[in-house]
Amino acid sequence: MSSTYGESLKLSIFGQSHGPAIGMTLDGIPAGLPVDLNKLQTFLNRRAPGQNDWSTPRREEDRPEFLSGILDGYTCGAPLAAVIYNKNTRSGDYANLKDCPRPGHADYTAQVKYGGFQDAAGGGHFSGRLTAPLCIAGGLCKQWLEEMGIKIGAHIWNIGALIYDDRFNALSPELDKVGSDFPMLNESAAKRMQEEIASARANGDSVGGEIECAITGLPAGLGEPMFGGVESRIAQIIYGIPAVKDLAFGEMHPKGSTNNDAFSVENGAVRTVTNRCSGILGGITNGMPVIFSVGIKPTPSISCPQQSVSLSKGEIQELVVKGRHDPCIVPRAVPVVEAAAAIAIYDLILSNTQTDRRK
Amino acid sequence: MSSTYGESLKLSIFGQSHGPAIGMTLDGIPAGLPVDLNKLQTFLNRRAPGQNDWSTPRREEDRPEFLSGILDGYTCGAPLAAVIYNKNTRSGDYANLKDCPRPGHADYTAQVKYGGFQDAAGGGHFSGRLTAPLCIAGGLCKQWLEEMGIKIGAHIWNIGALIYDDRFNALSPELDKVGSDFPMLNESAAKRMQEEIASARANGDSVGGEIECAITGLPAGLGEPMFGGVESRIAQIIYGIPAVKDLAFGEMHPKGSTNNDAFSVENGAVRTVTNRCSGILGGITNGMPVIFSVGIKPTPSISCPQQSVSLSKGEIQELVVKGRHDPCIVPRAVPVVEAAAAIAIYDLILSNTQTDRRK
Amino acid sequence: MSSTYGESLKLSIFGQSHGPAIGMTLDGIPAGLPVDLNKLQTFLNRRAPGQNDWSTPRREEDRPEFLSGILDGYTCGAPLAAVIYNKNTRSGDYANLKDCPRPGHADYTAQVKYGGFQDAAGGGHFSGRLTAPLCIAGGLCKQWLEEMGIKIGAHIWNIGALIYDDRFNALSPELDKVGSDFPMLNESAAKRMQEEIASARANGDSVGGEIECAITGLPAGLGEPMFGGVESRIAQIIYGIPAVKDLAFGEMHPKGSTNNDAFSVENGAVRTVTNRCSGILGGITNGMPVIFSVGIKPTPSISCPQQSVSLSKGEIQELVVKGRHDPCIVPRAVPVVEAAAAIAIYDLILSNTQTDRRK
Amino acid sequence: MSSTYGESLKLSIFGQSHGPAIGMTLDGIPAGLPVDLNKLQTFLNRRAPGQNDWSTPRREEDRPEFLSGILDGYTCGAPLAAVIYNKNTRSGDYANLKDCPRPGHADYTAQVKYGGFQDAAGGGHFSGRLTAPLCIAGGLCKQWLEEMGIKIGAHIWNIGALIYDDRFNALSPELDKVGSDFPMLNESAAKRMQEEIASARANGDSVGGEIECAITGLPAGLGEPMFGGVESRIAQIIYGIPAVKDLAFGEMHPKGSTNNDAFSVENGAVRTVTNRCSGILGGITNGMPVIFSVGIKPTPSISCPQQSVSLSKGEIQELVVKGRHDPCIVPRAVPVVEAAAAIAIYDLILSNTQTDRRK
Repeated sequence: MSSTYGESLKLSIFGQSHGPAIGMTLDGIPAGLPVDLNKLQTFLNRRAPGQNDWSTPRREEDRPEFLSGILDGYTCGAPLAAVIYNKNTRSGDYANLKDCPRPGHADYTAQVKYGGFQDAAGGGHFSGRLTAPLCIAGGLCKQWLEEMGIKIGAHIWNIGALIYDDRFNALSPELDKVGSDFPMLNESAAKRMQEEIASARANGDSVGGEIECAITGLPAGLGEPMFGGVESRIAQIIYGIPAVKDLAFGEMHPKGSTNNDAFSVENGAVRTVTNRCSGILGGITNGMPVIFSVGIKPTPSISCPQQSVSLSKGEIQELVVKGRHDPCIVPRAVPVVEAAAAIAIYDLILSNTQTDRRK
Repeated sequence: MSSTYGESLKLSIFGQSHGPAIGMTLDGIPAGLPVDLNKLQTFLNRRAPGQNDWSTPRREEDRPEFLSGILDGYTCGAPLAAVIYNKNTRSGDYANLKDCPRPGHADYTAQVKYGGFQDAAGGGHFSGRLTAPLCIAGGLCKQWLEEMGIKIGAHIWNIGALIYDDRFNALSPELDKVGSDFPMLNESAAKRMQEEIASARANGDSVGGEIECAITGLPAGLGEPMFGGVESRIAQIIYGIPAVKDLAFGEMHPKGSTNNDAFSVENGAVRTVTNRCSGILGGITNGMPVIFSVGIKPTPSISCPQQSVSLSKGEIQELVVKGRHDPCIVPRAVPVVEAAAAIAIYDLILSNTQTDRRK
Repeated sequence: MSSTYGESLKLSIFGQSHGPAIGMTLDGIPAGLPVDLNKLQTFLNRRAPGQNDWSTPRREEDRPEFLSGILDGYTCGAPLAAVIYNKNTRSGDYANLKDCPRPGHADYTAQVKYGGFQDAAGGGHFSGRLTAPLCIAGGLCKQWLEEMGIKIGAHIWNIGALIYDDRFNALSPELDKVGSDFPMLNESAAKRMQEEIASARANGDSVGGEIECAITGLPAGLGEPMFGGVESRIAQIIYGIPAVKDLAFGEMHPKGSTNNDAFSVENGAVRTVTNRCSGILGGITNGMPVIFSVGIKPTPSISCPQQSVSLSKGEIQELVVKGRHDPCIVPRAVPVVEAAAAIAIYDLILSNTQTDRRK
Repeated sequence: MSSTYGESLKLSIFGQSHGPAIGMTLDGIPAGLPVDLNKLQTFLNRRAPGQNDWSTPRREEDRPEFLSGILDGYTCGAPLAAVIYNKNTRSGDYANLKDCPRPGHADYTAQVKYGGFQDAAGGGHFSGRLTAPLCIAGGLCKQWLEEMGIKIGAHIWNIGALIYDDRFNALSPELDKVGSDFPMLNESAAKRMQEEIASARANGDSVGGEIECAITGLPAGLGEPMFGGVESRIAQIIYGIPAVKDLAFGEMHPKGSTNNDAFSVENGAVRTVTNRCSGILGGITNGMPVIFSVGIKPTPSISCPQQSVSLSKGEIQELVVKGRHDPCIVPRAVPVVEAAAAIAIYDLILSNTQTDRRK
């Protein structure tokens, strides 16, 4: 399924960048879960564009309107549904994208798949704008996980494979240390990263990077062997985020003797001395933090001239992409990665069947 | 679901390492597809242990017995079912794994999840042995894809992050150049890799590595936006392979100007000049090869003493893992990665709904 | 999943009767399918209340607003999403339903399941009003099926198990003969049925009935053995319509000699001489019409006093359901049954994998 | 999916009537559930053919061999897999079924769907024999439900719509009163039913009937609104049983005033005074018994000559079906209906997410 995710919960995302609205439905959620809409808005604002000088100036208020599923501040058992109406809608900017596709975008593949019927304006359903409804669902799951003591946080790990933040402490990730504006562990690298982004913008170029995400407070025993493993479930949704091209769990060491995490006991609880396995063995959590890194490709929208083709003429054609665009989406992708992780983990918790406890 | 994969096809894998048998069912396959059992056996033999001096000496003939779904050399529309009976079954070697879990294995997480009811012998359902039925399903899908002109091949890209093979040519991966015994592009590195593996064995240690896999001949337009994208579908199954901890599509460049793949026209067909996107834009194939790399952790079974815990006593306990084990599973994982890719791609092809062609 | 249906398409229905809006998302639909919104509205109007004197006077314009998935009159490949805003929203009428559940309604089961968090107003997510989004999805599928020559029509077969319409000719159902206002084959029974309904209303009572639905123009070979059979797929969605309590395919005869449908050849095509099997053998269509009947229970909302309980007090309590309600929902359920059938059949068509044709 | 069922559990059934084996895999089952194989065999024997003079003399021991998922008498968390090897395999009896299909069987629809590649022998994957693995899965689920106090039992309600057994008491179904050989509530009707079956056999004919099934001990609050309702989940699997053509829940009364089940309180628990709704309101259990009836068509295999067609010649051809067959499969279908119900209910229990209990 294209825009549907989940085993026990069912998330369905809809909308086109320049259509009437974008939104999501989220089915399978228990009744009685509290919903804090202000907290959700704060979370969504972290993804919103135009908040500072390193992202696109197109400004929208991504303020979701809930149509279903919430009553008096709690989930009511009906599927949740929320929409965000688009304000910056259809313009003439995108008229020729069906004939002359932008390199690095989905224009060409959409043209082949949908035969010209696709909504090309603003990338249509392929737009990064569709991560806003993902953040609605994920922001809610994040709240419900927090009530269980499960926290999720991410930071910019590097920009352009050049300037690196510190990594999370794998045994005890410093989630509280990460800021929300330009989320970093080590603020000293932030300035250089922002300069790198500004430099890309000045050159009409863009720059990618990597995000590191940690999940703490997970119980041991969550997940399934093989295709229902925690890595598989997270991977499926993380790769659903536009622009993600790689994903790695933990920090693998090449030798078994150093990669194996020795067990220990701490206050009666089983722990591991290191956490190279990212809290997952055999697809199942061991109670240590789950930590993964996500590679985000540079925004394909750049202002320098690019070589494309005219599909109708069957010949090469130069293309200049107009409009103003994020020179780097990595900062805005941080809450999106958190949202995706929250949805995957909350779904795993809802799906969890373990041992019959009667024996 | 734990051991079930697929949208249009439904693969279900069963068995425990030391149980009566392992096997798979594969539902949703069209009738009339030819099945070459000799070719399948050749493929399975690539995964089989004990074929040479860099893997475990435990030798089994992984010869599947088909119980359903094939008639006179063709699929007959009924679900396929195949079993491999285990010959080396339950021994006393694994008696205390439930109390003293092996670091890096699923012993501890299985104990938590299944409350002691799990079959710990040989890793039970978590054993790498379960990749044999995955290779049955994948070997068949690979045959059917080849009939459509879609080829899948993989090679050892590095061992221990130390000794590297060449990478596939991203525009035209040299699948025919890869051998089947110790699959490499550049044979000159093979000897040093094997020495590295032998050295790990000699030290009672193990070593991991990376595999690069390429898929050629794919039509453009395959896949879906968001969670049904080619990356998501491949990722879900690749992360279902035990020991996989990272996955990357293509070779990302940090700047948009170099990462975007310019379009060109070749003999009337749209191509790209580079292939950093790994043949996938917006989750959908663009007709260029799909190439990805998979990180395989070092075998957790090592013979040096390790720190574990006694779960019953709640205290640290030294553990020496007995038996002989692969010092490196990367070579044997190569066909497993191919099999997983074949299943994902064949499922995508069966699921493909595109444009209504009437207009 | 509660409100999600489909294998290849994914329908998700959301909303509460008195919430801000009801609606649906429909994913997995090919691009390029024409959408006739006027025709859809005509279809939806058949389900709308308050159109005549045998249904409830509460009048709403069920006019869907499409938020996604349609561009210039054609599907564009993005998931379809449509909402209907509720005009008659939350009133005080339903305040005590959480304590004193209405017999025959879902008030009590919702209270148990959702622990008091459910939206009880107007039945919440259990309201018959939720069949409006089902009709949006089904009305579209019906249009697309018609373009393929597949027609779906239903009629009131009986009211109160007392007054019966003719049955469809099983070999050639007279779909064109069925009217749209009070859909019948034999108009002479209509007047008596309406009198029966009026009599139920006059007595503060309600009355149920049965609907017969036929699908013509189906290709042979659609469906799957066992759980993916045409009957199973139709049954799952038909039983998702509130108030449905039975479903029968064809007219079974008790003896094999009369129940078996003899084969014949007509203009070179294989046909059957009778059609007791309802066009389905082994879960798969044989090219003859698929015909089934659906039992609809009488509206549980009746105005005579009923015995309920006070859940808080744990004692019996008399209940008088206020407001005005349909004394019979069978006429309005006719398009809902057609819609459900259309969704099931269109999903089957999208899912269909048959024979590899190369041999 | 053809032969796959379930949301939280995943049942996959494989095999052809005359292939090497039939069997099933069952994934998603918690570890630690006791498995009583003797009890399972007793259950399977109820379905076995050739036990008496009203069924087919072909005798097989349907003795499943478990390949996976059970250890020391308990489920171990790995998927369960079981096979039954076929003893009466491929004969020449079925050679011409691909050209001259048997009326009432799936021969023709299989031929269209699978293009001649299907295994026609004995009905292949469409054979009633495939209900044996359904009974393995269902027999296990039945055991696990019984441990929770949930019982399932069925009886022959009528044969040939002529001779009727009593109905279950809807408030308190007499499950213990039903025998296992020729399961009836009122033994006095049994003799006449058996005579009716013997008469059909003597005439080279067959006869159908109806089965009534009851489920007791269900908690209130199980199920979901709309497509995940208890009726939908049961219907999908019941219609997956070959020969089922109708299904009705409860005994509907045509007037709301008599069909609504008044609430009462018994020993502090909410009950209903009648149980027309079959224990289900809005798709969710109310704690009363769930009771449904299933119509089973007469065995299509009859020995009198029938009109078929030669598909190759495109002309009518008389067909005499050879071999000996059950003149009535209703008695043997009784445990199959119980098995299907048990699987549906156990899946519902595993899937159940209700209210967050913290408030």
